[in-house]
Amino acid sequence: MKNMVNLNFDELQVQWYNIIPDLPEPLPQPMDPKEGPSRLQNLPNLMIGECLNQEFSNKTWIDIPGGILDLYSRAGRPRPLFRATSLEKKLDTPARLYYKSEFFSPTGSHKVNTALAQCWYAKQQGFERVTTETGAGQWGTALSYAAAITGLKCTVFWVRSVYNWKKDRLSFMKLLGADVFASPSPMTEFGRSLYEKNPEHVGSLGIAISEGMEDSQKDPKATYCLGSVLNHVLMHQTIIGLETKKQFEIFDDYPDIVISCLGGGSNFGGFALPFMGDVLKKGKKIKFIAAQSQAAPNLQGNYEYDFADYAEITPMLKMYTLGHKVDMEPIKGDGLRYHGSSPIISLLRHKGLIDTVAYPIDEKYVFEKAKIFMEAEGWLPAPESAYSVCCAIDEAIKCRESGEKKVIAFNISGHGFLDIYGYRTILGIE
Amino acid sequence: MKNMVNLNFDELQVQWYNIIPDLPEPLPQPMDPKEGPSRLQNLPNLMIGECLNQEFSNKTWIDIPGGILDLYSRAGRPRPLFRATSLEKKLDTPARLYYKSEFFSPTGSHKVNTALAQCWYAKQQGFERVTTETGAGQWGTALSYAAAITGLKCTVFWVRSVYNWKKDRLSFMKLLGADVFASPSPMTEFGRSLYEKNPEHVGSLGIAISEGMEDSQKDPKATYCLGSVLNHVLMHQTIIGLETKKQFEIFDDYPDIVISCLGGGSNFGGFALPFMGDVLKKGKKIKFIAAQSQAAPNLQGNYEYDFADYAEITPMLKMYTLGHKVDMEPIKGDGLRYHGSSPIISLLRHKGLIDTVAYPIDEKYVFEKAKIFMEAEGWLPAPESAYSVCCAIDEAIKCRESGEKKVIAFNISGHGFLDIYGYRTILGIE
Repeated sequence: MKNMVNLNFDELQVQWYNIIPDLPEPLPQPMDPKEGPSRLQNLPNLMIGECLNQEFSNKTWIDIPGGILDLYSRAGRPRPLFRATSLEKKLDTPARLYYKSEFFSPTGSHKVNTALAQCWYAKQQGFERVTTETGAGQWGTALSYAAAITGLKCTVFWVRSVYNWKKDRLSFMKLLGADVFASPSPMTEFGRSLYEKNPEHVGSLGIAISEGMEDSQKDPKATYCLGSVLNHVLMHQTIIGLETKKQFEIFDDYPDIVISCLGGGSNFGGFALPFMGDVLKKGKKIKFIAAQSQAAPNLQGNYEYDFADYAEITPMLKMYTLGHKVDMEPIKGDGLRYHGSSPIISLLRHKGLIDTVAYPIDEKYVFEKAKIFMEAEGWLPAPESAYSVCCAIDEAIKCRESGEKKVIAFNISGHGFLDIYGYRTILGIE
Repeated sequence: MKNMVNLNFDELQVQWYNIIPDLPEPLPQPMDPKEGPSRLQNLPNLMIGECLNQEFSNKTWIDIPGGILDLYSRAGRPRPLFRATSLEKKLDTPARLYYKSEFFSPTGSHKVNTALAQCWYAKQQGFERVTTETGAGQWGTALSYAAAITGLKCTVFWVRSVYNWKKDRLSFMKLLGADVFASPSPMTEFGRSLYEKNPEHVGSLGIAISEGMEDSQKDPKATYCLGSVLNHVLMHQTIIGLETKKQFEIFDDYPDIVISCLGGGSNFGGFALPFMGDVLKKGKKIKFIAAQSQAAPNLQGNYEYDFADYAEITPMLKMYTLGHKVDMEPIKGDGLRYHGSSPIISLLRHKGLIDTVAYPIDEKYVFEKAKIFMEAEGWLPAPESAYSVCCAIDEAIKCRESGEKKVIAFNISGHGFLDIYGYRTILGIE
């Protein structure tokens, strides 16, 4: 039996899929808040020009420049799609399970797909440095990597509470040549205002975003990059789902259920939107499930305009949100800990096209399922990806009970080699 | 420009290459020492039957059973061959550099190629458990993985001095369901004799081998597995070089220099022997370089009969050796720290067909080169693989100086995600 489908270099996807023109109704535009300076007018100072164009594009297919294709191939794209034959047997399910291997990424997650594109465009526009924030660290690592291989400098503001204990990830970013600061840092005005009061301030993603933005705005040679939520980020990530669709053709199969974990929405969107296009345009019937944590079940929040950051520097986005000042419990799948979901995903959720499940905060339920996956398939998922795996296993078990031969596709957005501590802690393994 | 060549599932290599019949002279056979019980007569009690057959086989091509092909594809084989275009540019060299991506392995190293084969054969022979030793931990992890996905139990005796600090790797083995003991352990008679005198005994690979062997011999349902040195292990690894040769055809290129790091010889042999076959049979001219550490420059030792283990349980093998009781300085590339080189590699070295270089023990020279590679290509090599990378870069720099457009192929036998501590320490990175 065929267990995996590779694609070759010359089968690499040459266009990204922009779902915006295919959405069931127009995507609500970003808005300025009633008070304060215009965030929208500031966007051109903040974002890479081509990314800003893409953010508002109405073209369904956007050509991937040759330079970015080159970078994708150097990052190991296309990546295989696996049939989880061993897991199916272990679960004794009639379902057919397939998983996409974003864990083959050089930094360990799907984040490189947009990091490479953003750095390439930044370089084209003449920038010499990129700045960003990171929480769990996957995005900061991906941007450090992309900057290194495109010849840009990179500055990362990293939420101090995570910076303090993820030593290996910190060293990895530094090996890639990035400057990394615990946030709040003394490097920016906003950071300094907090840092001076308390040099051990644990920080937050919102604060780190504010620092990354301020740093780039004060340096004409620098630009700011964001790793999730925005339309162009999800679009860059559609390379995942587009490859997966080609690979399903080679398997001569097609999914009934499409699953991925969801924090801001970049890996879920990247994997699911190309299939969603089939639902919207070709009448395909697919159940989409976003796997979340009860620590941040943003798809169960309110569908309303909210800021993307704590400090209210971004424009307001129409999205499912828990409120941009909400407190969220710490979890090992830290990449899922975000208050809002991207506008595209939110609209589709609002139209009833995306289901969601949120797993308990203690994460035992999720990590135990990930262990079952590991023992069967041998790959170590990132903590965030463990939610995707868990949801797929739960659906496969439902099929065992109902006898339905459903086809379940799930994305493993990253590997867990830098997060074994999380598994050890949650599962009580030595 | 083409940066990588993937192969698909149906292009997976279906035979291993056994170089023994092609060697320039007969391979010296293993021998019993003059005194003590016969180690040779004990081999059938110790080794998997099919592996023992393969060890002495004179067939050039050995079919890979369908079950093992299945396992290989589930482990992500075939793996891409990359052209290091960015590194070439960074080094300003006219040389063309290519690297094989064993870092895509589920456990992070090439060791799975033989672990999967051995576990599959063990299962066929009715065994329920495999035992082994491990030093750096790559082999123990690979066997834990292979046992898990073939449905075997796995017991690993791990040199205590390494066991004590590689927490993540220990947890990884346990996540895969293995029983792992610090060696010397109280679990075997031999281990107990040392453990009772000193429960903090730091152990050695030789002691751990003895424990693994004893444990399997006392349990008729268990068999012992070895991860390097032996002929059949190198043969299983030839899948690396055989894939690489196919990929070079697609690149329409062919190497002048073939490089890999060498401890016992399994990754070097697996990568180089298929090319060596071209030298021996087709008159190709290739320079082979084994990258070693001055902590264990075994190819600069004596070519003579020696034991493969400290405790003298194995037969004596004709090999380049530093002596099986030699003390070796600890290094981060711990997988290269072995007193002898496999008999096949040793014979080829003896015939002048393999060059060798040994890098300084402080490893700064090696890791600095690995950092150059990372900044250009983005992949994080295992500490052992860093030796391979370093040697390739040195050869590329020679080409810059001489103007020669040589083609350099090197193997990256594993990733360094579980070994970032080593980079941090050696390079003085935060």
